Amino acid sequence: MAPTIDTTPILDIKEMPEEAHPMKGGDDLNSYSQNSDYQRGVIDAAKTIILEAVNQKLDLENNITTFHIADFGCSTGPNTFLAMQNIIEAVEQKYKITFQKTQPEFHVFFNDHINNDFNILFRSLPQKRDYFASGVPGSFYTRVFPKASLHFAHCSYALHWLSKVPKEIQDKNSNAFNKGRIHYTGNEKHVVKEYFGQFQKDMDLFLKARAQEIVEGGLMVIQIPGLPSGEVIFSRTGAGMLHALLGSSLMELVNLGVISEESVDSFNLPQYHPSIEELEMVIEMNNSFTLEKIGALNHPMKNLPFDVERTSLQVRAIMESILSDHFGERILDPLFEIYTKKLQENYNLFDKEIRRDADLFLVLKRKSN
Amino acid sequence: MAPTIDTTPILDIKEMPEEAHPMKGGDDLNSYSQNSDYQRGVIDAAKTIILEAVNQKLDLENNITTFHIADFGCSTGPNTFLAMQNIIEAVEQKYKITFQKTQPEFHVFFNDHINNDFNILFRSLPQKRDYFASGVPGSFYTRVFPKASLHFAHCSYALHWLSKVPKEIQDKNSNAFNKGRIHYTGNEKHVVKEYFGQFQKDMDLFLKARAQEIVEGGLMVIQIPGLPSGEVIFSRTGAGMLHALLGSSLMELVNLGVISEESVDSFNLPQYHPSIEELEMVIEMNNSFTLEKIGALNHPMKNLPFDVERTSLQVRAIMESILSDHFGERILDPLFEIYTKKLQENYNLFDKEIRRDADLFLVLKRKSN
Repeated sequence: MAPTIDTTPILDIKEMPEEAHPMKGGDDLNSYSQNSDYQRGVIDAAKTIILEAVNQKLDLENNITTFHIADFGCSTGPNTFLAMQNIIEAVEQKYKITFQKTQPEFHVFFNDHINNDFNILFRSLPQKRDYFASGVPGSFYTRVFPKASLHFAHCSYALHWLSKVPKEIQDKNSNAFNKGRIHYTGNEKHVVKEYFGQFQKDMDLFLKARAQEIVEGGLMVIQIPGLPSGEVIFSRTGAGMLHALLGSSLMELVNLGVISEESVDSFNLPQYHPSIEELEMVIEMNNSFTLEKIGALNHPMKNLPFDVERTSLQVRAIMESILSDHFGERILDPLFEIYTKKLQENYNLFDKEIRRDADLFLVLKRKSN
Repeated sequence: MAPTIDTTPILDIKEMPEEAHPMKGGDDLNSYSQNSDYQRGVIDAAKTIILEAVNQKLDLENNITTFHIADFGCSTGPNTFLAMQNIIEAVEQKYKITFQKTQPEFHVFFNDHINNDFNILFRSLPQKRDYFASGVPGSFYTRVFPKASLHFAHCSYALHWLSKVPKEIQDKNSNAFNKGRIHYTGNEKHVVKEYFGQFQKDMDLFLKARAQEIVEGGLMVIQIPGLPSGEVIFSRTGAGMLHALLGSSLMELVNLGVISEESVDSFNLPQYHPSIEELEMVIEMNNSFTLEKIGALNHPMKNLPFDVERTSLQVRAIMESILSDHFGERILDPLFEIYTKKLQENYNLFDKEIRRDADLFLVLKRKSN
């Protein structure tokens, strides 16, 4: 009964157990939809990149009636709507210039994990919009679309989430055991190696799935938080510091007797922030896409003074689900009280170091078979 | 910016205010997903119809890579999954016999109102399935898909829900004012006329939208609760009696001083149960589809003895949302206590009359332009 046209098995969740960490749903003060300004800044800055990519790199088909766009890891909005609108405007403009006649209709597919809050996403869809909207549940590390069904793929601030924590770093007997921390700092070579290994595998799965789903000549724009160029260590970047302080806040809860040390040792963030060189390597090895452009975005959010309260809320919106899955909901309030205090104590450092973050963007083009 | 290829405006909720009455979400005792056995019986019985329709009527395209199926008014499952599986099996079989070679991949689109519980729908998707799944939020009385993008459309137990209550029947000064009732019984000609007028308009909107979305030669299978043939009055059918008793249960709450008489007068069910002749007329006037088959399904659920508790739970799962929107949630428990009592009192009548319901099915084929 399985389609014989394709040897890749269609999504079977049982066969691929995988972690999912949806951003906080709903739209209250702690929700992702209310705390995604930074990502929005990235999307605004990416508008120019998208316009340029579409103009210079997208192969238009004259005879299609519908242009298909997918956002992978869309979360609950509103950033995804903005990004999709930017893509549509760029494509419409190019159709107008190229064919001077009818436009295709647009069908936009919003993809995220099956436990993403699609109800909130659907209810916040722009009422005036120039596209048909669909939600597509499922991990983007598997196939979620039919063959050659997408003309443009987009993935913003999602691919740094690994499919799982690398096993070795939670194994007490391994030299990669990550004791007393919840992420890598960059100093523990064995730990970083395991994290990068997982990223390589995941990114390759992502590219393999997309290679089947995107038409020849179709484009994919990716934004991902990465490591700045040069010999920068992760713990000296904004994200690295934020994670290190979250780890030490958890250790403070250990000292207060609220949680056990073992529970912190067995908790690690499934995230990797790659360098440009690492991304280039993975894409080249995968061999299905040409890398048309890669670089770091410059956007105004980077230069804002550091805001302790806002940052604490943002980190909570992103981490709340994964933290309460492991430690229980009751630790959230005390944890983020400690965390906010730690951010305050490190205000000067953050205000200086935060500029070391790199918001990487990539423009990929599906090769012809 | 609007696609110039198509003069139909894409979904604009503001311009088309419309009522939506999602089935009770979640999966607890009162939920629709736990109380949709009757509809499931209808779908099982429809399997043969679908198989026959696909075999005899569906025009297969040899060169497509993906076969697109949509279920309009899918609710939260599990019936929609069963229906989609039945369609896929029939199409696969026909492809096998016709071309003896590769199968297309299947993409299934689950459509329902924007306030349907898509989270539950997605989380209950079969883990083993031979199709890619998407959710499509929006009223099926508007365009929700691109032009000519569907090969097979399905709509089960959804089209009897009108887009709104006809205005006249809630107007005190109209001769169609429906005082003291919440639905038509069939005796009040003016009321029935308004209801049928609304059904005609809505069904025509549905057919016009689908005519644009379904490819030439594509099929649409519809199941809808209807009026049995002959001179049967609605209040003497199972559904008609269920609605009449719900109305008199509400009136009992008026007598008990729990709700006001005005609140019942201003509440009417936006449902119409058409006859075969009425459906034939609307489809012919619309002129985009040929009616390949129409009739009443015979299914085993019809012959089960009447079950008071089960029926009360089923009616509650379906009506809970619309009732609590109008009267508030607090009336639900007392209302359904009274209702269950009334069902019990009418046990003999139901056990006899329930067989008078007609589960109509239609097979439509998109004409060539």
